[in-house]
Amino acid sequence: MEKFQSKQLDHEKVFRDPVHTYIHVKDKVVFDVINAKEFQRLRRIKQLGPASYVFPGATHTRFEHNLGVYELTRRICNIFEEKYPSVHPGDGLWDPNESLLAQCAALLHDIGHGPYSHTFEHLFDTNHEKMGQEIITDKNTEINKALRQVSPSFPELVASVIAKTYPNPQVVKLISSQADADRMDYLLRDAYFTGVTYGAFDLTRILEVIRPYRDGICFTYKGIHAVEDYIISRYQMYQQVYFHRVNRSMEVILHHLLQRAQRLYQENKLQVTPQLAAFLGENWTLSDYLKLDDGVMETNFLLWSESSDQILADLANRYLYRHPLESVKINEETKNLIPKLDKLIEQAGFNPKYYTDTNSAFDEPYDAYKPTGKNAHSPIEIMQEDGTLVELSEFSPLVKSLNGTLQGDERFFFPKTMVKQNNEPQIFDPIYQEFQKYIRNNELHYLRRPSKK
Amino acid sequence: MEKFQSKQLDHEKVFRDPVHTYIHVKDKVVFDVINAKEFQRLRRIKQLGPASYVFPGATHTRFEHNLGVYELTRRICNIFEEKYPSVHPGDGLWDPNESLLAQCAALLHDIGHGPYSHTFEHLFDTNHEKMGQEIITDKNTEINKALRQVSPSFPELVASVIAKTYPNPQVVKLISSQADADRMDYLLRDAYFTGVTYGAFDLTRILEVIRPYRDGICFTYKGIHAVEDYIISRYQMYQQVYFHRVNRSMEVILHHLLQRAQRLYQENKLQVTPQLAAFLGENWTLSDYLKLDDGVMETNFLLWSESSDQILADLANRYLYRHPLESVKINEETKNLIPKLDKLIEQAGFNPKYYTDTNSAFDEPYDAYKPTGKNAHSPIEIMQEDGTLVELSEFSPLVKSLNGTLQGDERFFFPKTMVKQNNEPQIFDPIYQEFQKYIRNNELHYLRRPSKK
Amino acid sequence: MEKFQSKQLDHEKVFRDPVHTYIHVKDKVVFDVINAKEFQRLRRIKQLGPASYVFPGATHTRFEHNLGVYELTRRICNIFEEKYPSVHPGDGLWDPNESLLAQCAALLHDIGHGPYSHTFEHLFDTNHEKMGQEIITDKNTEINKALRQVSPSFPELVASVIAKTYPNPQVVKLISSQADADRMDYLLRDAYFTGVTYGAFDLTRILEVIRPYRDGICFTYKGIHAVEDYIISRYQMYQQVYFHRVNRSMEVILHHLLQRAQRLYQENKLQVTPQLAAFLGENWTLSDYLKLDDGVMETNFLLWSESSDQILADLANRYLYRHPLESVKINEETKNLIPKLDKLIEQAGFNPKYYTDTNSAFDEPYDAYKPTGKNAHSPIEIMQEDGTLVELSEFSPLVKSLNGTLQGDERFFFPKTMVKQNNEPQIFDPIYQEFQKYIRNNELHYLRRPSKK
Amino acid sequence: MEKFQSKQLDHEKVFRDPVHTYIHVKDKVVFDVINAKEFQRLRRIKQLGPASYVFPGATHTRFEHNLGVYELTRRICNIFEEKYPSVHPGDGLWDPNESLLAQCAALLHDIGHGPYSHTFEHLFDTNHEKMGQEIITDKNTEINKALRQVSPSFPELVASVIAKTYPNPQVVKLISSQADADRMDYLLRDAYFTGVTYGAFDLTRILEVIRPYRDGICFTYKGIHAVEDYIISRYQMYQQVYFHRVNRSMEVILHHLLQRAQRLYQENKLQVTPQLAAFLGENWTLSDYLKLDDGVMETNFLLWSESSDQILADLANRYLYRHPLESVKINEETKNLIPKLDKLIEQAGFNPKYYTDTNSAFDEPYDAYKPTGKNAHSPIEIMQEDGTLVELSEFSPLVKSLNGTLQGDERFFFPKTMVKQNNEPQIFDPIYQEFQKYIRNNELHYLRRPSKK
Repeated sequence: MEKFQSKQLDHEKVFRDPVHTYIHVKDKVVFDVINAKEFQRLRRIKQLGPASYVFPGATHTRFEHNLGVYELTRRICNIFEEKYPSVHPGDGLWDPNESLLAQCAALLHDIGHGPYSHTFEHLFDTNHEKMGQEIITDKNTEINKALRQVSPSFPELVASVIAKTYPNPQVVKLISSQADADRMDYLLRDAYFTGVTYGAFDLTRILEVIRPYRDGICFTYKGIHAVEDYIISRYQMYQQVYFHRVNRSMEVILHHLLQRAQRLYQENKLQVTPQLAAFLGENWTLSDYLKLDDGVMETNFLLWSESSDQILADLANRYLYRHPLESVKINEETKNLIPKLDKLIEQAGFNPKYYTDTNSAFDEPYDAYKPTGKNAHSPIEIMQEDGTLVELSEFSPLVKSLNGTLQGDERFFFPKTMVKQNNEPQIFDPIYQEFQKYIRNNELHYLRRPSKK
Repeated sequence: MEKFQSKQLDHEKVFRDPVHTYIHVKDKVVFDVINAKEFQRLRRIKQLGPASYVFPGATHTRFEHNLGVYELTRRICNIFEEKYPSVHPGDGLWDPNESLLAQCAALLHDIGHGPYSHTFEHLFDTNHEKMGQEIITDKNTEINKALRQVSPSFPELVASVIAKTYPNPQVVKLISSQADADRMDYLLRDAYFTGVTYGAFDLTRILEVIRPYRDGICFTYKGIHAVEDYIISRYQMYQQVYFHRVNRSMEVILHHLLQRAQRLYQENKLQVTPQLAAFLGENWTLSDYLKLDDGVMETNFLLWSESSDQILADLANRYLYRHPLESVKINEETKNLIPKLDKLIEQAGFNPKYYTDTNSAFDEPYDAYKPTGKNAHSPIEIMQEDGTLVELSEFSPLVKSLNGTLQGDERFFFPKTMVKQNNEPQIFDPIYQEFQKYIRNNELHYLRRPSKK
Repeated sequence: MEKFQSKQLDHEKVFRDPVHTYIHVKDKVVFDVINAKEFQRLRRIKQLGPASYVFPGATHTRFEHNLGVYELTRRICNIFEEKYPSVHPGDGLWDPNESLLAQCAALLHDIGHGPYSHTFEHLFDTNHEKMGQEIITDKNTEINKALRQVSPSFPELVASVIAKTYPNPQVVKLISSQADADRMDYLLRDAYFTGVTYGAFDLTRILEVIRPYRDGICFTYKGIHAVEDYIISRYQMYQQVYFHRVNRSMEVILHHLLQRAQRLYQENKLQVTPQLAAFLGENWTLSDYLKLDDGVMETNFLLWSESSDQILADLANRYLYRHPLESVKINEETKNLIPKLDKLIEQAGFNPKYYTDTNSAFDEPYDAYKPTGKNAHSPIEIMQEDGTLVELSEFSPLVKSLNGTLQGDERFFFPKTMVKQNNEPQIFDPIYQEFQKYIRNNELHYLRRPSKK
Repeated sequence: MEKFQSKQLDHEKVFRDPVHTYIHVKDKVVFDVINAKEFQRLRRIKQLGPASYVFPGATHTRFEHNLGVYELTRRICNIFEEKYPSVHPGDGLWDPNESLLAQCAALLHDIGHGPYSHTFEHLFDTNHEKMGQEIITDKNTEINKALRQVSPSFPELVASVIAKTYPNPQVVKLISSQADADRMDYLLRDAYFTGVTYGAFDLTRILEVIRPYRDGICFTYKGIHAVEDYIISRYQMYQQVYFHRVNRSMEVILHHLLQRAQRLYQENKLQVTPQLAAFLGENWTLSDYLKLDDGVMETNFLLWSESSDQILADLANRYLYRHPLESVKINEETKNLIPKLDKLIEQAGFNPKYYTDTNSAFDEPYDAYKPTGKNAHSPIEIMQEDGTLVELSEFSPLVKSLNGTLQGDERFFFPKTMVKQNNEPQIFDPIYQEFQKYIRNNELHYLRRPSKK
């Protein structure tokens, strides 16, 4: 098997990081990847998109997160090399020769992301996974050039780890599984920057009990409480942060704003900077993609906020200056009320196409079953004293309770004015009052029939 | 005296904040100011400008900092109202009627900042203090409208506190003095986001010992160690973060980049978005100013990075993708070597006008003497058991040692290639070697004469 | 209704506390209770008994915990007085007149504890609840004298809150319920001193959402995740700390040591200090009880460690110098193997009466059902926007999964030498090998029959 | 040179520690030393003696501190082995063969401490340094036996490191110098348990920049701010915690209590447990010394608190139930007032011999000069880029300001009743009033002459 050699830097480089204290870099290839322009560009893309509208501290970027995943992977590789070095192929232990590959894949696992990926991809037919593969394997990128220092095939190998086609499951699962370095970093980092303490699990303990086995990564028995705690933290971050109703509301606005812009562009009525024009024209290259960032998007929103198209201007202002839509929980049954509500909203002067939406946010906190689909994750395995593996939820009533469930809600979004006005009487008051009858305790519900007497 | 009344919100609003846990808002005027577009715009302006190039976590914005200063002021006002309520005018205690004014001034003390203020103001004749006064007092801003809820003269009063012309020194010094809510918040916040623990002083203790007196704000004797610690923290943040050589290097590049852009604009050779054009054309309004942010600047840098002007393109790339200049310490004597070094740099192919600079960064960590100039600060006073006041450095050998000194250094910046090349032999090697003779232990120094034999 | 007045101290007193930063005392009665000798004595009684043998940092005492419960109660009362002051009796809001009573009850809720209460009470027919009532109501204690400052009946009222017979359920449930100030403090404190981060829940958020209602204390809807997190933390602290197998092993040794001492005392063969003699002689008074502490117990263990009774000396040494018993998990079925194992242990030279034991540790993390017994707790109630109450597990799948379950295990304890010896061959090796056949993955199990062929 | 080999444990053992998260043990000798009874006994001796009377959380013991110093030393040795391994003798780098010795010396550097060492040694002619040497080198101790596993001379070598006579200055200075593992641990630990945040310096950074050099341990230039911060932290812990006036007051009481007990013992009037009797009789052995602990001392104080000797009983009660003496600052001049004050105190009914005292507490925060005496410490050296060493204060104005100064104060202690009484008129009021004339702002001062008119 090919040996991956990397030149070492003269002096170890360190980056200050509030989550891991320091990020350590000794390999020249890692340092060169970080300095590549495609990587530096991540400094201008927020990790959590519009979440900083809800959690003002959440301005951290994909740059720091990628460094963090690298650092965690580096620490785990060091632990594996010291505690579980492979003696002969197939012994289920860690081959130190894989460490550099794992670290580069960790560093680059999210390199394909652009601004507001979720919303952007939906509308502009981009795909961060595909773009990531391209950035790594295209001979013209600085990242590709840096990786080729190691060997001509190294970029392809890094890409294969991220694509989960690399043959060694230990390397793949370190980067993507139900307990991978990616999730560990983003939970800790998002918790730190939002200030939501729920996401903070016991990383030190996790690093004490993580170990390789033949088919991937597992945890020793004495660490079950730390692993359990990690699953709970993940669940809580989803419920508290990622699925926050205002966060989703800002995404709804963003989606409608870009939709409106797309339409006006087609009608040749949109002012737009060159960086974004390529995408609205559906004719873009990798080089165009690499010039997108949060600032470019917002610069366009600023232009649009003065558009003569009132819907575009209003949505841009709502996004820039944080005027979220209001929302209520819905279910399969109460969903049927939406057309009725849309009509009221329209009577109050809003185009429901741009001012209302439904949005589902559900997550499966843990899945104990063997994967079937491409994105399915294998369960978390616990290694007992005698070396046998047991799936986590066997030991944890908490994890068992979450196993295979979908947690989250579906909501209906609409203009806040329908439910919250100043106290002065207003022309639309009867409409508002009618609307409000359908809402109680933050949920949509059917009107109770007045009982006959 | 006028009584400031504010409508209370139906429900207290809270913002999650990783530094103060929660920001609490009960007054409608405060909530409305926060929601004003001129305030929301601060979300798009980083607190520390290019410092995130050195400390990747430092992406926090002026929005959060302003909320933080408000929150600290709110807590201090609450403490003063409870522990030191004024009984009759002039008794040196706290008039609860001042609390709302103090909090609004705290919230708005930095409202005039634009992107990269320091560099921008220098080049474009803007001034964040003046802009702040205008944003508060101009009848057309949403902030002004929000403040007028309290009284027609309230905006002017808020502006006067920030301008330090308001008659009550307690209110003024809460917002700006050597131990004000502004400094307390930024030290804690910058420490949190950079991950530099030095800046974290004992806020809880400071809040236990802070108190009003006739001429301002002081601290009770039992708190001297906490106040001392705060001064030390401030000193350390300056030395470690604000004066970091790479931080300053990025500012040098930014300065030269904008200088070059200015020149090309005059020659009609610059592509620029509308938001920035007004400033390059030296013909801008408040409304233009309010449309500037970090993203607009960087969107222009992205455009410029593809300019046919090589210097502009190179400087834009250096800024966007973090290629700082190298630097060495200089002093009054070794400064004289710079012309000689500039010549070598020019021989190596760089225009010294755009690729070298000197930069001084000095701070006076504490000043015990009575102020004379406009920006001078009165010393920190300690109240003894019998009510007499003593200036802080009398009690603290540490503070005494810093008192009135200037800490920092002056550096000479130049292209890194002059001192760090790859190992391959290069055409300019003799020039580089000559250059490097003048540098030792990170300082410029005169060549030692070879001693005669 | 009687108004409770307390003299205020000239200056607020503060105690440094690493968990709550500061404990604040303004009421003279609170300060005097803290200074009473019966309260100061708690400084010499560790909060978690032998747990510091497992978690070396867990040397914190009941003194700090009681202060902590007081401080939390004080903060909650302040919040209630400000946000939910009762307007007329029976409106379900907080009567500020109850605050002092609640705080005194909080401070004294554990005053009856002696050293190693759990084990001690079992053997010596003491009872910390009964002793607590006596310390508060006996006219000769300094605590009683301090409380009588408020009113002659105040001691009885404080005692009634602790005994849960006080009529106002809000006051009672602040001190003892499934989410009371007692539990909140001990979870945070035990987490801090053990270093087990699991116990740290989001207290700040809990204090934002706690509120009174007619029948007690509840939490507003927006706080469900914080309350859920608190329940999870509690569960984790039980599994990780309180039920730790080595902790329980030290308790088993302690129990047997005191049992042996009791027997030798009856046979007049025991050297003992006066403080403990009274209890071994089963003839003790409140004054004797107040002279017991951890140090007195250990001073006796030091005496006993040199006893000519080998079992007493060995058990004392095991306790003092930390030689825990080993243990394995058992269940209803495998329990039946114990007589067989006891025989092997006896053959290896240990008296099973003193060297083996079984120990159950189970906890019900949460109970959603209405209480029936005296110690049953009412469920945690969540107040929705419209004021209706819903029981917590309705909103939380995690809490639902724990609801009404018993978590923990039962273990069989025995001398470690049965399973872990040095490598040298030993006389008892065949016995040890026989013994070890019954153990796998830390559990007892039946031998597998060799399958016939 | 002798190679120190240690058997490795089958599985690494870890201890939870709130300061360093985990203490890791892999060497059997280290594990056996920790389990030795002379080491386990440290669990019963508080690290800060009576400081928990002021900082209730400060109940941590010498056991944890010794583990912490070991852990820090282990981490530093690991770093040295990886980054600075010696290639040939005398190259100024780290010889990995020294690591085990350094770690054992770290673990045992304080093994000789008994309860309340400071006060105890003063009165009973014990000496913790001498006792420590004996515990390590006496063939009958479990510690000696454990160390001899490595080699017959290993105990002596460990003892020589602690005694600073071991030839390799790197090993000696790791354990005792101005920046050693001992100080680093106690500052962090005492800060954590007292809750005084001042003591927390940036350990992670210190570990990044620490390195060996020919004559000891130094720090690289880029770490000067972290080292500076450590010196400041040390200064602040002394001023805030170790020299706290109430802490010193409890030591004064303890001293007088033991003095009184000594006298009564000589007069055969003292009830005492066997463990302490040996010392009062001035006829004790190592075995007696090893049976002393905080609990034994307090058990005796409990006995004495009921003595018929009123002074003994009162002092015992003051100590047990925390009734500190009051104190004021004095200087060379105001000291002369003490005889006058003693007379007033005597008139108020107190024997000045037992109820008053003076106490000096001064510390030299940093000393830049080369040592002369035995306990002198060499200065902290900073290694520049070119390998030259510069003494720390050259780079730090803060450290320069503290260099060679003595910080602290001298105080006069006396019964609190002289200055604080209840409001009721009392018989001694005129004496008290006379006394109080000499005190202002917490200092003793001469009476001002009434000016003639």
